[in-house]
Amino acid sequence: VDLYNYKLTIAYDGTHYHGWQIQPNGVSIQEVIEKALKTIFQKEIRIMGSGRTDAGVHAHGQVAHFKIDQDIDLKRVLGSLNGLLPKDIRILKIEKVESDFHAQYSAQGKIYHYHLCFARVQSPFTRCYALHVKEKIDLEKMAEAAKLFLGVHDFYAFANEAHTGCAAYDSVRHLQRLDIVPEEGGVRLEFEADGFLYKMVRNIVGTLLEIATGKKEIDDIPKIFASRDRRLAGKAAAPQGLFLIQVKY
Amino acid sequence: VDLYNYKLTIAYDGTHYHGWQIQPNGVSIQEVIEKALKTIFQKEIRIMGSGRTDAGVHAHGQVAHFKIDQDIDLKRVLGSLNGLLPKDIRILKIEKVESDFHAQYSAQGKIYHYHLCFARVQSPFTRCYALHVKEKIDLEKMAEAAKLFLGVHDFYAFANEAHTGCAAYDSVRHLQRLDIVPEEGGVRLEFEADGFLYKMVRNIVGTLLEIATGKKEIDDIPKIFASRDRRLAGKAAAPQGLFLIQVKY
Repeated sequence: VDLYNYKLTIAYDGTHYHGWQIQPNGVSIQEVIEKALKTIFQKEIRIMGSGRTDAGVHAHGQVAHFKIDQDIDLKRVLGSLNGLLPKDIRILKIEKVESDFHAQYSAQGKIYHYHLCFARVQSPFTRCYALHVKEKIDLEKMAEAAKLFLGVHDFYAFANEAHTGCAAYDSVRHLQRLDIVPEEGGVRLEFEADGFLYKMVRNIVGTLLEIATGKKEIDDIPKIFASRDRRLAGKAAAPQGLFLIQVKY
Repeated sequence: VDLYNYKLTIAYDGTHYHGWQIQPNGVSIQEVIEKALKTIFQKEIRIMGSGRTDAGVHAHGQVAHFKIDQDIDLKRVLGSLNGLLPKDIRILKIEKVESDFHAQYSAQGKIYHYHLCFARVQSPFTRCYALHVKEKIDLEKMAEAAKLFLGVHDFYAFANEAHTGCAAYDSVRHLQRLDIVPEEGGVRLEFEADGFLYKMVRNIVGTLLEIATGKKEIDDIPKIFASRDRRLAGKAAAPQGLFLIQVKY
């Protein structure tokens, strides 16, 4: 039988989930969407995301695809899915795509944002959507340090991954943009790259925070890159500040 | 003994509370703050808010006052309170005020905002902070209708209050401003008045929505005012779109 291929664009508030990917200890976003698809199509449907996001991480534009032997009514399925899903997970778009489209392997790049709050008292409305930094921050130093991450680098030291031990593991990525944009109560760090290693954004933000608070020096960055040693980079910044904004194809 | 009088400016996400005011069936914001004050001062302290907000209603600038026989260290108490309180309730400011300052009776006016989302699919991030309106809205008609609420009126028909039956009940208020401001995915209705009756904002928003969706006519508004009959006004709009922004003194 011919299989039709569908692309989902998904927004979610990750606060109450154990991340994107199905796993034994908690409810994942993938699992909740697959359950809704099963209710609609009366059979198991596996969706493939562009990549996992951790517990507490949010998305404005996660992408996933799934195959099915039916030419579906896009508008009707969009409505049914959003009717079945909890309101903290929304399908923004559903499109029919070529059979070789793959949410992960076809991706050409991604954009992530990370929100930092510098207010003395954090607004109750950003408590799940920004990291509250209470220490004094040197923003100029942070901006200068951010420049050293731009370009093509081996980001091995900034990745937490089970398979970093494999000979075939490729940890070279092209970070095309890292902008620090002022916003109410703090700043937003905008990352754009051809791809990201696991926890790479949070590890870079953690390192930038250690530099901006005087715990590390700007000169440490080239040394951390060269070391390929995860222990030398900063502690991963908390998940709630991180948003997957867009996956580019 | 001399009593010192303190003014609190408070922000809260009302999603998980049964409103501001202490009541038997659920946890209120007032009760959570009084419990934190009791922990700090080791005695019962009653706080008086500028007015109640309902379950699900939020505040950027609720005000309350309390009296105590101590000249307290403001900075230390602010830190202790926010340390004890859950992150969805934040004390933004604590100030020493004149002994005759009263959060409710000294108030000269208030500002409320109400958020409406018109997007086909509501963002998961506004699900608790805006009312999702799925019907087609005539915004020009809404703007025209909004003008009829401006000025000094007897808002009796737009109030839900236990004591509306009292002879002494004064339901005349001066609505100084009702602006419809575009924002991402919808609009924000900004209300400013010398005071608001119970559920007045939500009842006006409900009435405006019925007009904007063709269920009521603009000409109905003067009739509803004149009737002093709550049943003629629109259904109260849902609480989650409402924010108490500022209390003016």
